[in-house]
Amino acid sequence: MTDVALEPGDRLDDLIINDLKIIQRDDQFRFSLDAILLAHFATVRPNAVAVDLGTGTGVIALLLSTRGAAQVIGVEISPVMAGLAARSVKVNQLAGRISIQNADLRNLRGQLPAGVFDLVVSNPPYRPVGGGFLNPNDKVAMARHEITATLAEVVAAARYLVKYRGRFAMVHLPERIPEILEVLRQAGIEPKRLRMVHSAIHKKPNMVLVEGVRGARAGLEVLPPLIVYDDKGNYCSEILAWYQGEQPL
Amino acid sequence: MTDVALEPGDRLDDLIINDLKIIQRDDQFRFSLDAILLAHFATVRPNAVAVDLGTGTGVIALLLSTRGAAQVIGVEISPVMAGLAARSVKVNQLAGRISIQNADLRNLRGQLPAGVFDLVVSNPPYRPVGGGFLNPNDKVAMARHEITATLAEVVAAARYLVKYRGRFAMVHLPERIPEILEVLRQAGIEPKRLRMVHSAIHKKPNMVLVEGVRGARAGLEVLPPLIVYDDKGNYCSEILAWYQGEQPL
Repeated sequence: MTDVALEPGDRLDDLIINDLKIIQRDDQFRFSLDAILLAHFATVRPNAVAVDLGTGTGVIALLLSTRGAAQVIGVEISPVMAGLAARSVKVNQLAGRISIQNADLRNLRGQLPAGVFDLVVSNPPYRPVGGGFLNPNDKVAMARHEITATLAEVVAAARYLVKYRGRFAMVHLPERIPEILEVLRQAGIEPKRLRMVHSAIHKKPNMVLVEGVRGARAGLEVLPPLIVYDDKGNYCSEILAWYQGEQPL
Repeated sequence: MTDVALEPGDRLDDLIINDLKIIQRDDQFRFSLDAILLAHFATVRPNAVAVDLGTGTGVIALLLSTRGAAQVIGVEISPVMAGLAARSVKVNQLAGRISIQNADLRNLRGQLPAGVFDLVVSNPPYRPVGGGFLNPNDKVAMARHEITATLAEVVAAARYLVKYRGRFAMVHLPERIPEILEVLRQAGIEPKRLRMVHSAIHKKPNMVLVEGVRGARAGLEVLPPLIVYDDKGNYCSEILAWYQGEQPL
């Protein structure tokens, strides 16, 4: 690990996957299992060039890199989070393979090239901005609600970036599946893989993983469900394998 | 049971559910688990008036009736199957609650009223007519391939029949989920419930059950998966409960 000056409030966490460290802050959005699941679900071809839209802490960018992506660009609208993610990249000595761009995914034209990326991923805000009160200065709300980007805007950004036959993978809420699939198809990104994520086998899924291929023909592969916890409340063997058998935090 | 003259080739099977009998023929399409699952998945409100599109043997119409539907109309394009289904209705003394119409679901205008039905269901042909050779006189192929009705035509028929806030439930292949959800939404039938059907927990689903509500707003409930067989290869308890604990044929 190189010397990286942590800033006041920074906390250096151990990801327990591939010896990765991650800097987080208690007053900012911290990554959750959703990001870990997406990073392991996406199809990462050897030497892929990838973009993570709304990278936050940068955790997905880090994991895609250790999964074999040659280059990963993490796009993040918050300058505070972008700085945090950039410091995490340095901590892990991955500055040669990951770059963090403080940019608005709604406005990538001129900032990133069109149609050249093998893979685009996103763990976007899940919930539409409804009638309820939301403080636009609330950093956690920005990551959870569609304040800075709607589903359609995330997919439009992915469509702009991904090459023909390239892939776009996303984690989202099952209740929005019809809208997700429709928006993907309208953007010419055909849904090809889908996996439901359940906390237990007899429960409804609380997340869905979806991957589409730009320009592919129709035909969706629905994978076996991912059941996060076993009967004893421990992570299932599939997830534990990522953590080399250790129970993560 | 009333006296019903079975025709040569008719075979009287026991459904083992609610003492229902069903007439089948070895030279025609016979119902499978798909139909049983759909009949139990659909939301049947007390005294519902329902239509089963492509009723075949009539098994779904019979089950909807015993689940509480006041009136069920089974639409069937094949005169041979329509006759068979009508005899099954008589065998079960349900002629007052179920009627079978020998009609083409692509041409229901003038045959059935528009927008009055509480529930429409369909176990349609699953597979598009591809490049392969298909004999249009093959009765089993007609039930499996979209020779007599495509997905879009089935949904259009459902849209014609179902009342505002009424429901349409279908069983289909998981690989066609994106197309199914899109066609439903385009018809104004919003997907509201979805359930994957797996033969075993670690396998991909081989069927999907979907229910939409005409005029509803977006928001899909994805139910826990239905795992058809337990570890010993027996039907799961949920399915066995329909059969009062007996292993069906």
